Amino acid sequence: MEIASRMSKVAYAIRDVVVAAQKFDGKPGPQMLKLNIGDPNAYDFDTPQYIKQALYNAVEHGKFGGYADSSGYLPLRQQIVESNALKGIKTGVEDVLVTTGTSEATNMLYGAMLNPGDEILVPSPSYPQYENLAYYYGATPKTYEMSEEKGFQPDFDSLEKAVGPRTKAVVVINPNNPTGAVHDKATLHKFIDFAAKHKLVLISDEIYDSMMLDGKHVSTASLTKEAQIITFNGLSKNCLAPGWRVGWATFSNFADSTLRSAVEQLCRLRLSAPYPAQVATAAALSDRKQYDESVRLTLAKLRPRRDMAFKRLNEISGISCAKPQGAFYAFPQIHDTHNTWKTDKEWVLQLLEEQRVLTVYGCGFSEKPGTKHFRIVFLPNEQILGEAFDRIEKFMKNKGY
Amino acid sequence: MEIASRMSKVAYAIRDVVVAAQKFDGKPGPQMLKLNIGDPNAYDFDTPQYIKQALYNAVEHGKFGGYADSSGYLPLRQQIVESNALKGIKTGVEDVLVTTGTSEATNMLYGAMLNPGDEILVPSPSYPQYENLAYYYGATPKTYEMSEEKGFQPDFDSLEKAVGPRTKAVVVINPNNPTGAVHDKATLHKFIDFAAKHKLVLISDEIYDSMMLDGKHVSTASLTKEAQIITFNGLSKNCLAPGWRVGWATFSNFADSTLRSAVEQLCRLRLSAPYPAQVATAAALSDRKQYDESVRLTLAKLRPRRDMAFKRLNEISGISCAKPQGAFYAFPQIHDTHNTWKTDKEWVLQLLEEQRVLTVYGCGFSEKPGTKHFRIVFLPNEQILGEAFDRIEKFMKNKGY
Repeated sequence: MEIASRMSKVAYAIRDVVVAAQKFDGKPGPQMLKLNIGDPNAYDFDTPQYIKQALYNAVEHGKFGGYADSSGYLPLRQQIVESNALKGIKTGVEDVLVTTGTSEATNMLYGAMLNPGDEILVPSPSYPQYENLAYYYGATPKTYEMSEEKGFQPDFDSLEKAVGPRTKAVVVINPNNPTGAVHDKATLHKFIDFAAKHKLVLISDEIYDSMMLDGKHVSTASLTKEAQIITFNGLSKNCLAPGWRVGWATFSNFADSTLRSAVEQLCRLRLSAPYPAQVATAAALSDRKQYDESVRLTLAKLRPRRDMAFKRLNEISGISCAKPQGAFYAFPQIHDTHNTWKTDKEWVLQLLEEQRVLTVYGCGFSEKPGTKHFRIVFLPNEQILGEAFDRIEKFMKNKGY
Repeated sequence: MEIASRMSKVAYAIRDVVVAAQKFDGKPGPQMLKLNIGDPNAYDFDTPQYIKQALYNAVEHGKFGGYADSSGYLPLRQQIVESNALKGIKTGVEDVLVTTGTSEATNMLYGAMLNPGDEILVPSPSYPQYENLAYYYGATPKTYEMSEEKGFQPDFDSLEKAVGPRTKAVVVINPNNPTGAVHDKATLHKFIDFAAKHKLVLISDEIYDSMMLDGKHVSTASLTKEAQIITFNGLSKNCLAPGWRVGWATFSNFADSTLRSAVEQLCRLRLSAPYPAQVATAAALSDRKQYDESVRLTLAKLRPRRDMAFKRLNEISGISCAKPQGAFYAFPQIHDTHNTWKTDKEWVLQLLEEQRVLTVYGCGFSEKPGTKHFRIVFLPNEQILGEAFDRIEKFMKNKGY
């Protein structure tokens, strides 16, 4: 059985390392420390009780076990409009589509937008889906550089170099996965000007917008009425329920509804996003007091972990790390001055084998060529994190760093 | 904004008629009777309480709010293996992938399997996704005929005519949506022989396998060790929870794991199917006593509605209807002997406008050319169904039938 050629470049490092880790299951050695997956619920975080209760209420009402409106449960879309307004994004209900996580939103948007041979600009480093799904649809992702010495802020010269006549869109991830970088107003204005100048769709992934460790988040679409912007957000991270699979896309400043209608058509084809979870999400967003309090509690746990990760990683010889300002990722660089590892994938697999610490290799995130990185999550508690950093330190020392 | 060319043939009649119906919202006239959507929960059916309780338990356990294993929650996959075994399908856990409904399974399987220019055989009439997603991936669906006079059973001559060197797979929907036809052992053996002879993947959609109104369901994969079969099933219909979005695909008799691995790769790319619902589904399948009792209750409600639909539709002048043996659909033919309607879409929209009865046009289901049909669900109670048939009868009489 020959598989389709579109599969040839589809890989997802974050989950692929899990397969590599599974071969150590039940083997002698220290306990595996998993710093690989951006899932707060795998650590000491849990969905707020008021959102759980809203789910129970929804499920008890038989109707919500059926299919929702393909474009999303209307009261949820109304709550998203309200939520957007709090961030300064002004749209109508028709501009909001609810999806099965933002993964599905990306898939549908790419499918509706990208012809084979089209190009899309993605940051380097970037969340891998943005590259992978471009390949899946026969399009070509072109990377633009994030300057590590400036805390992974975009290099706009590299954007101008990467854009071409077949470029359809530019992806901005803010806060960024895998770096934790956050873009300020001035930077976002530059992205907007760039997108408007080249008539690109600007995809603004803001799924971590409540997870701000420093400063206040600015939503790209709040800054302009010019550029065509699609904002991604969802329940997953901000409300600690990634497994419930509720995300959404908000269309701003589109002159016509062609693209949105095409995505809606794809929404119809898959019938419905999970219904009970959508009803619960409407409740989650409508109670701003509980929402804000839950975010406050999450950040109170995350900040000291971020601080610890930043401090400890930079103390390890051969490792440096830019300070994450949002989300729960750090993207340390491996300064392989002794040419010990061919790739950072080799580094990650060796660390896994020798120290049982599971991280993800930077080349899975379209990192800048010639550099080596790995991604960690600082979601585990301080005790686990401390133990992980001890082991990474030991690992590097063993290699002569 | 130009959209991608793959969108040009993507349409989904079942949801598109909803848009047509919306313009009558709040307008004077009789109450809209909706016979359009295969969603039991929109009528007087509800998810069994023991499955709801299992969902509550899963959500209370914080971990299940996170991401599940991309290929599916392991205890659920084990339960699916058990469930399959009860139907005579023998596979291992690794042969089962859990998806966000079978819609996602179809999408992923097509994406992993079909190159542009490839062909796939779908029944006529057929559930529209099987055609639509082929177009979406640049492949060509070829229809094979279901003989209406034989109760919508396949015409194997038309299968032999439709197969070609680029044919990759053949789709069998059993029980069928939109006709309610069920295929017996002898027919399934012919499909198996056909697939084996032409080295095709046989996709056996068995999502309605518990919804048998007459006789006992036979699972295609239980009959052979020869043909490569992918069986689709899920929670949606059999357990009355379509909005929970849990489906699965079981791979049988594949010589190697190439195709399954490609689908798994796509599973990783979208991270996870809904986790709490997967945990609840494992519980749903493990308690066979409650499962069977819930199916029994559903069928006890459905059978008299099927009988009524079959009787009343055949009594209407200008309409005939084959007897549905499974699922909850009927696919009556419009005998347009006075050339009253250009298409059955026109018939459906006129019925909607004049009588406020919402059905779906047959041309949305790749019906046999030159015929006119519509699809109804017989999910509403007898009072609503009776009223709907009264109105259809009146509609046809008004047109001189």
